Amino acid sequence: MWQAARMDLHPALAPLAGLLGTWRGTGHGVYPTIDPFDYGEEVTFAHVGKPFLSYVQRTWEPDSGAPMHSELGFLRATGADRVELVIAQPFGATEALVGTVEDGRLRLRSQAVVTTPTAKRIDAVERDVTVTRDAQGPVLRYDLRMAAVGEPMTHHLAAELRPGD
Amino acid sequence: MWQAARMDLHPALAPLAGLLGTWRGTGHGVYPTIDPFDYGEEVTFAHVGKPFLSYVQRTWEPDSGAPMHSELGFLRATGADRVELVIAQPFGATEALVGTVEDGRLRLRSQAVVTTPTAKRIDAVERDVTVTRDAQGPVLRYDLRMAAVGEPMTHHLAAELRPGD
Repeated sequence: MWQAARMDLHPALAPLAGLLGTWRGTGHGVYPTIDPFDYGEEVTFAHVGKPFLSYVQRTWEPDSGAPMHSELGFLRATGADRVELVIAQPFGATEALVGTVEDGRLRLRSQAVVTTPTAKRIDAVERDVTVTRDAQGPVLRYDLRMAAVGEPMTHHLAAELRPGD
Repeated sequence: MWQAARMDLHPALAPLAGLLGTWRGTGHGVYPTIDPFDYGEEVTFAHVGKPFLSYVQRTWEPDSGAPMHSELGFLRATGADRVELVIAQPFGATEALVGTVEDGRLRLRSQAVVTTPTAKRIDAVERDVTVTRDAQGPVLRYDLRMAAVGEPMTHHLAAELRPGD
């Protein structure tokens, strides 16, 4: 079985070490084609001693706790300040993004988004993630923009997460 | 949080119900460009009441238990006998596959494989999965073929897994 607990962090992941662990909080979504919505969210970044982090995300309705979205993937450190992110989406999409990490700030732009025959079309995605620290401790914030269903690149999601269990 | 334990299986997932749970076993890999290798493997399919299964997979070296591969994704039921599978790979690839499920046999062919700028190129993937039953109980077998790094579609991986914990 996997031995993450005994593994040292791969040196290439040093610029991404601040992401490690589980984060929880709330987010807000908007898009020209849908009603705005709020969500609860949990994100976990983990490693197994190799130069990538696994990325496990899920969201839920704030009131009922019912599952909303989820996504799964891997964040790769590919040299110096370069990163790549590959993601699978349950509505029938994959994203491959490339970008940079600098001072706890990730800037990722899609190289290719694939949508399956039954999925709504997404043409491009931009994901910015920052890990900073305020009076209450570490905070992870992200902003996701997408060009989808005929709309140009437009803000879609923003959330603020704090360390979880 | 998610409430999988309280959720009924989505009716569209009935043809995929046999996959649910955790499976463990061993596999064998070959490819014209590499040495043959054995691996231990764990696969978990789970649901949250929606018409898809999450797919979490990891493999390890049989002797040392050290992590080898992992992949994450979602298997979607898209009507009648139709299925779609989206996967993220830690070496910098995404797969979107479409296919059929019939009598516990999945046949999936890649619609698109994306490899990131730093990854080895994969052009196409074929995945066949069966769930059957023998004297020892349920057994999940898969066969994975791929066209990659200049090779034509060629057998790469096969494994046999049994229900885990």
